[in-house]
Amino acid sequence: MIKAGIIGATGYTGVELVRILSRHPEVRLESLTSQSYVGQSFEGVFPSSNNFANMLLEPQDAGALADRCDVIFTALPHGVSMEVVEEVTQKGKKVIDLGADYRFDRVDVYEEWYKLEHKTPELTRQSIYGLPEIHRDKIRTAQLVGNPGCFPTSIILGLAPLLKSGLIDSTTIISDSKSGVSGGGRGLNQAFHYAECNENFKAYNIGMHRHTPEIEQELSKLAGSDVTVSFTPHLVPMTRGILSTTYASLKKSHSVEDLLELYSDFYKDEYFVRIHQKGQYPQTKWVYGSNFCDIGIAVDPRTNRIIVVSAIDNLVKGASGQAVQNMNIVFGLPEKTGLDFAPVFP
Amino acid sequence: MIKAGIIGATGYTGVELVRILSRHPEVRLESLTSQSYVGQSFEGVFPSSNNFANMLLEPQDAGALADRCDVIFTALPHGVSMEVVEEVTQKGKKVIDLGADYRFDRVDVYEEWYKLEHKTPELTRQSIYGLPEIHRDKIRTAQLVGNPGCFPTSIILGLAPLLKSGLIDSTTIISDSKSGVSGGGRGLNQAFHYAECNENFKAYNIGMHRHTPEIEQELSKLAGSDVTVSFTPHLVPMTRGILSTTYASLKKSHSVEDLLELYSDFYKDEYFVRIHQKGQYPQTKWVYGSNFCDIGIAVDPRTNRIIVVSAIDNLVKGASGQAVQNMNIVFGLPEKTGLDFAPVFP
Amino acid sequence: MIKAGIIGATGYTGVELVRILSRHPEVRLESLTSQSYVGQSFEGVFPSSNNFANMLLEPQDAGALADRCDVIFTALPHGVSMEVVEEVTQKGKKVIDLGADYRFDRVDVYEEWYKLEHKTPELTRQSIYGLPEIHRDKIRTAQLVGNPGCFPTSIILGLAPLLKSGLIDSTTIISDSKSGVSGGGRGLNQAFHYAECNENFKAYNIGMHRHTPEIEQELSKLAGSDVTVSFTPHLVPMTRGILSTTYASLKKSHSVEDLLELYSDFYKDEYFVRIHQKGQYPQTKWVYGSNFCDIGIAVDPRTNRIIVVSAIDNLVKGASGQAVQNMNIVFGLPEKTGLDFAPVFP
Amino acid sequence: MIKAGIIGATGYTGVELVRILSRHPEVRLESLTSQSYVGQSFEGVFPSSNNFANMLLEPQDAGALADRCDVIFTALPHGVSMEVVEEVTQKGKKVIDLGADYRFDRVDVYEEWYKLEHKTPELTRQSIYGLPEIHRDKIRTAQLVGNPGCFPTSIILGLAPLLKSGLIDSTTIISDSKSGVSGGGRGLNQAFHYAECNENFKAYNIGMHRHTPEIEQELSKLAGSDVTVSFTPHLVPMTRGILSTTYASLKKSHSVEDLLELYSDFYKDEYFVRIHQKGQYPQTKWVYGSNFCDIGIAVDPRTNRIIVVSAIDNLVKGASGQAVQNMNIVFGLPEKTGLDFAPVFP
Repeated sequence: MIKAGIIGATGYTGVELVRILSRHPEVRLESLTSQSYVGQSFEGVFPSSNNFANMLLEPQDAGALADRCDVIFTALPHGVSMEVVEEVTQKGKKVIDLGADYRFDRVDVYEEWYKLEHKTPELTRQSIYGLPEIHRDKIRTAQLVGNPGCFPTSIILGLAPLLKSGLIDSTTIISDSKSGVSGGGRGLNQAFHYAECNENFKAYNIGMHRHTPEIEQELSKLAGSDVTVSFTPHLVPMTRGILSTTYASLKKSHSVEDLLELYSDFYKDEYFVRIHQKGQYPQTKWVYGSNFCDIGIAVDPRTNRIIVVSAIDNLVKGASGQAVQNMNIVFGLPEKTGLDFAPVFP
Repeated sequence: MIKAGIIGATGYTGVELVRILSRHPEVRLESLTSQSYVGQSFEGVFPSSNNFANMLLEPQDAGALADRCDVIFTALPHGVSMEVVEEVTQKGKKVIDLGADYRFDRVDVYEEWYKLEHKTPELTRQSIYGLPEIHRDKIRTAQLVGNPGCFPTSIILGLAPLLKSGLIDSTTIISDSKSGVSGGGRGLNQAFHYAECNENFKAYNIGMHRHTPEIEQELSKLAGSDVTVSFTPHLVPMTRGILSTTYASLKKSHSVEDLLELYSDFYKDEYFVRIHQKGQYPQTKWVYGSNFCDIGIAVDPRTNRIIVVSAIDNLVKGASGQAVQNMNIVFGLPEKTGLDFAPVFP
Repeated sequence: MIKAGIIGATGYTGVELVRILSRHPEVRLESLTSQSYVGQSFEGVFPSSNNFANMLLEPQDAGALADRCDVIFTALPHGVSMEVVEEVTQKGKKVIDLGADYRFDRVDVYEEWYKLEHKTPELTRQSIYGLPEIHRDKIRTAQLVGNPGCFPTSIILGLAPLLKSGLIDSTTIISDSKSGVSGGGRGLNQAFHYAECNENFKAYNIGMHRHTPEIEQELSKLAGSDVTVSFTPHLVPMTRGILSTTYASLKKSHSVEDLLELYSDFYKDEYFVRIHQKGQYPQTKWVYGSNFCDIGIAVDPRTNRIIVVSAIDNLVKGASGQAVQNMNIVFGLPEKTGLDFAPVFP
Repeated sequence: MIKAGIIGATGYTGVELVRILSRHPEVRLESLTSQSYVGQSFEGVFPSSNNFANMLLEPQDAGALADRCDVIFTALPHGVSMEVVEEVTQKGKKVIDLGADYRFDRVDVYEEWYKLEHKTPELTRQSIYGLPEIHRDKIRTAQLVGNPGCFPTSIILGLAPLLKSGLIDSTTIISDSKSGVSGGGRGLNQAFHYAECNENFKAYNIGMHRHTPEIEQELSKLAGSDVTVSFTPHLVPMTRGILSTTYASLKKSHSVEDLLELYSDFYKDEYFVRIHQKGQYPQTKWVYGSNFCDIGIAVDPRTNRIIVVSAIDNLVKGASGQAVQNMNIVFGLPEKTGLDFAPVFP
């Protein structure tokens, strides 16, 4: 059994890790840490987990935790992960970091967008961007995985076949993304106060969202050249789910059928990517609570644009489910282990 | 492997049965039937189930289905189940009926409340009311299980310890229940049209809801005498979940602590009933997508009333999860088999 | 024109006062105060009010405000209102207090439930409980009106005809109330964080909610004897609306028709109370954004209980609309002035 | 007083017309018609309107109605309006048609997208596209106004200043729009069944939505040349509100400040268009229940694109409010008459 610890277990991605790992057949949850709830029972703080996580919340002593665990999931705010992660890796243990600190190839890009000095630049060079469908081989031997952001996961998986094949003009990419409110985390904020989210829809951080450089880094690698995108996130009055609608101009005209074949072929061995048939576009409800990324495409012949619609559950494929998928790869387990549950519908 | 068929697979309880049974380790889904979607693929109609139910929807030929299956789940409107169930039982196969036709001990009570003539009165005498926590022993040997209604499940489990122990005045029971909209089914209805449910809360069928006699039948058996209740259902703008707030006068005064001990003791061997500590009351989100029934209690010393709060997911413990729990019992499997998944939170 | 000031204009009841008063034909909004947003424009903080409230938020100097205004609305947390109100009344100006500090006839009851010492007990003796349908005559000459709580408004109006007529056993009253989340205010709180309210339903403060003594005070006056109630509030995943389901035993049996006649007669001159016909029960959406209290009743002949369903918009008839209704009465205006807008449906 | 009739009063736009017109100071509601509810009281069918619309629903006899009214609002499905409208105009009365039949300059475009033969092509030549901010002068003398679609209203108002000024490359326009569910109407449909909308977000009719040619017609007129757009509608789990996020490439680079000045200047006399300050983007909640169109803009200097965010209430500025605004213009009333109510927030 793999002994796993979660640092930052009481945020939403932490709670979702507990949900998944508590029934993972090859994992034993060894330790859950928290800052605000030290000494309390996890089940007392999150009664939904009664019968699943009869453990006390421990203080965040990364070194001690590393001694007891084979793998540590860090579910911390950006900037906070850095030092914690370094301490764990120095003990030779595996880390899946759910924050942004280890997603970037270039420290300067991170520092520019996150307005922070990176304290462990050398470690970022070893970290692997944990999108299994794209970087599986490197993840296998990684000690430190930078688990992707939720918006980037949906957008990169949606565009990968097009960029790899060179079918689109990469200067024309616009991604209009919509997220459920749990994406904002568990911390209190007027923007996530129920009465101000409910029956409301809005855009935010237009052109400035920190997932932009992460998206561009990965799209550029896929394209083999620098890609700049327009990325606009929106807040949907629902708890879970991301849907990204991505527009790009096709270099030549192609039928939907041909493009669907391209997608199906590209993802033919990927259990967690489901390509929808012509005329059917994914809905966030179809992936609710599951680790799937659903993709549908349309071609607008009047403008020769392709429109890619991709949907994930932001807390699963967009965070904790993908983290467990990465863990499975790192430890040589079948990738579906502990993750093969169906979406909850309706 | 148990070969299972679902008659009426395209309503919400049918879809939920597919979700659960598709990953049940001892079950093979043999056949799904439908009236509206015959010949279509289940995954095409419900794309959330892609990778889980690659099957074509068959017409509802109960006899043929019975030949191929060990157990049939009937998820049909009341009145429609009767003949279907009879045909299956005559072939010697097990049936879990999710409708109301086989929940009643007395045919006349059924006929009065459902305004229908019962066509198989003799069969109702063999059927067992499938609330495992109360009738497990009889379910073990049942051929036909009448799976309980959603509201009754929450209310009966909430009151059982009190009625068994004789602590409350059974003429004073008032159950004020609230249900998510999926309880109304998948059929189109102005009352379940999004714009008329959302940002809205209402009571309906006050004093007339058909779950009333079902509740009274079971409470009367527990009390050992006739019990009449006031039952008011309400519609909550959410998809899943039932919360019942039940009031009764205590014969003598008791502390919450003593009553919680009574509950904990009554349900000490019941995995799917979770009793909350003093001052904590269940929320529907805490059981979302799971087979748990969560119970909390308060005592109002000013009026000497006990207030019982019980929560279930109406589609799981209130329908399809409980149906699988019954199947597990009927086939001698551990009761949790295929049902031990955690609630989805948030 | 009546010059009006609002102390605490940036909470939800303050914002709703601005919405109503900005188009009240006899009122000029003279001043809005705030603690957190002093110096900012009200429209900047609440862009929904653009074109309606082009004013800067002022600090809370009650005395100075009193000099400039004819009436002050205090929309402050309980305990905070006391001193502010005293300062205004000493200047001889009218006050409508939307908090709890001036709703109680007995200071000791307030102090017991609110765990606070009342600093202006003599002023509470002059204040009038501002439920116009019950206390209109006293409100006319009041200098200080204690505007009712949201739950109490729905429950008292729902029960008044029964208690006045002596038809129910007043020891049997149970009020099971449900509120939208805006009732919890604009202050940040984990309980009102979107992802923890949405798709969730719960009870809270069972038997302990501070609206209990307020309800009992008014019901007792109507009954002419001490009334004790069981009151359970619940949180509904919607922004606005309260629906109270109230149960009581009838002393003798009565038809719904007779009781509806009693209600219609009792409220025949009340524009803001709408009695629904037999078999129709109010929904919160039917009063959305309006000052109406809708009431429907059912009789359960099997238990001889009456079930009263009453619905209001918690921010209008449950708070700011009622406050303006009180102001209209105090200033001798027609009661509907500025309040005669239709509910928003759907 | 203007005598007004509504043909099709029991759909959502009809109900919203009743809400607005029942308190319009210059209008008397003369007749409401329905197909499904003839002979019933409007207040009985829509109890939210109690005290506002004490009228019986009449059958749809357009000719008889025209005799009794000065203006008829037709709130009918496309295709159905044609003949009704013709009958009314022949009697010399004014018509505001809320459907699509009279929005198009070219009958062939209508027929291609709506798959219908237009029965009154000559009448379409007289009809005026009723977007007051763009076509006010022509509306003044119109007998027949084709009231704009909801999506087009948000998009055209959002782009008008840019197209008029020639600042954008009109081949690059992409409009990603999101609508609340009431936009789908009151008719039953699986897509609008509560449990399938709630906690769900989806795109639909990608590249094929019938509002596309309407948008293009008006944008082309503004640009002075043919404009083709990519338009993708989405369904948001909320009742009311449209938010359109529109992307276009700037021909040259411009600062947000300069562009905001352009917008403010363009709309300086328009009460119902509110331009937001730099860095603030409209939210649908800010226009809830009101006739405002709120607009905010961002410039992405990395891609030299402008992103326009525009928000309306789909049932008010997107339908019934705009219809009344048009009526006010046609009858020479101040444009705000009966429409100057504030958004409901929260």
